[in-house]
Amino acid sequence: MSEESSGNTKKVEVILSPALFPAYFESKDCTVVVIDIFRATSAICAAFESGVEGLIPVATLEEAIDYKSKGYLVGAERNAEVVPGFDFGNSPLGFKDGQFKGETIVLTTTNGTKAIEMAKSAAKVIVGAFTNLSALCDYIEKEDKDVLLFCAGWKDRFNLEDTLFAGAVAQKISQNLRFQNLSDSSIAAINMYNGAKDDMYKFLGESSHRKRLSRLNMEEDVIYCLTLDQSNIVPVLDGNVIVSDKK
Amino acid sequence: MSEESSGNTKKVEVILSPALFPAYFESKDCTVVVIDIFRATSAICAAFESGVEGLIPVATLEEAIDYKSKGYLVGAERNAEVVPGFDFGNSPLGFKDGQFKGETIVLTTTNGTKAIEMAKSAAKVIVGAFTNLSALCDYIEKEDKDVLLFCAGWKDRFNLEDTLFAGAVAQKISQNLRFQNLSDSSIAAINMYNGAKDDMYKFLGESSHRKRLSRLNMEEDVIYCLTLDQSNIVPVLDGNVIVSDKK
Repeated sequence: MSEESSGNTKKVEVILSPALFPAYFESKDCTVVVIDIFRATSAICAAFESGVEGLIPVATLEEAIDYKSKGYLVGAERNAEVVPGFDFGNSPLGFKDGQFKGETIVLTTTNGTKAIEMAKSAAKVIVGAFTNLSALCDYIEKEDKDVLLFCAGWKDRFNLEDTLFAGAVAQKISQNLRFQNLSDSSIAAINMYNGAKDDMYKFLGESSHRKRLSRLNMEEDVIYCLTLDQSNIVPVLDGNVIVSDKK
Repeated sequence: MSEESSGNTKKVEVILSPALFPAYFESKDCTVVVIDIFRATSAICAAFESGVEGLIPVATLEEAIDYKSKGYLVGAERNAEVVPGFDFGNSPLGFKDGQFKGETIVLTTTNGTKAIEMAKSAAKVIVGAFTNLSALCDYIEKEDKDVLLFCAGWKDRFNLEDTLFAGAVAQKISQNLRFQNLSDSSIAAINMYNGAKDDMYKFLGESSHRKRLSRLNMEEDVIYCLTLDQSNIVPVLDGNVIVSDKK
């Protein structure tokens, strides 16, 4: 037990980048929330909301190609764009027409799916986005374990949007007396979220990734990804496949 | 050149933990500011203000013991306490009586001296603390290079006090038009500093390391470390020795 633990209160820790995961992942008995707001985890939530049956996250393009050769529908994104030769990327809007309903699809992204891969030995790995915030917080509280809010970042760098979301979750669950053992990173993320929540779009105006998406004309995706509670599904990792908690 | 660079504006990036150093250290042609507010870099600034001639930072206790056997005065801190058998720890107040005036001393600490070791291939490595904030910012502006504000953290974890100070520096230098290319981490640190600057002591009340120091009755150190501009010396790494910029 770390020196910060107190009694039976659960730890709530924000991991600001995949490079920091080893410094925080002390025990498998925890709930890890993988966060990649622009856009992998927002897209995964949208996929389940649109009726996808299962989603296999893979870290490398090699694995993605392998699944494609087996006949799967495979999405691949690198540097915010669809990789040529694949079926889709990580735009959440790409799932809204329900074309993958009932399917088990495969996805690899620059940061998000690597983070899922790193976290997979944890007792529970779930997928979070502003679009399923409330359902996610309810799920975390029911699990009643220490919580690691794992920001996928951008190529191991800190990013604002993932941290903002981690702050939103940390603030919401820490209203519950069982989740009040906050790390320094959680305090910082909550602080940032409180300063930004009234206009996240504006707050993120100067962020590196919003600028990147803006250059690629993905403003519509950005607005979608910052709109709260569009889904009550919590995607949960089950072995190597992500499934809906409602199934 | 990274995609965030624009024209001749210098990058200002905050590195929130030593584990993130590789993700930000893209070129040696930069100024690295090593930050370990509680208490290594505050102590190093205090040492030079008290007249120390040189300070050799070493990462391991083995190296520290080696210097001690050669007759040096050696400080060693681990987990916020003086290591038994050494001459002093990393309390800045330990230097105020001027007992090491004119000496070249050796210091190893839990986080700060390791960060100095990691950074040492950079063109310029300097030591920052609230106690030399203004002098440090002037020095950075004169150097006119990209700036990495390198938080030593706590055993690779994010901490609030180092990030607050990085925010203070980023905010101050970004008033200068030449230093306005801010990373997401700099934006977050500035935001945090602006919310906390009117009462940093209170803001840090819940921080992990302030609690740790409080248990060890080091509140006086904490207050010293949060008091701005007590020194106009900028400690600068010169080979393996830190020296004063005023020499």
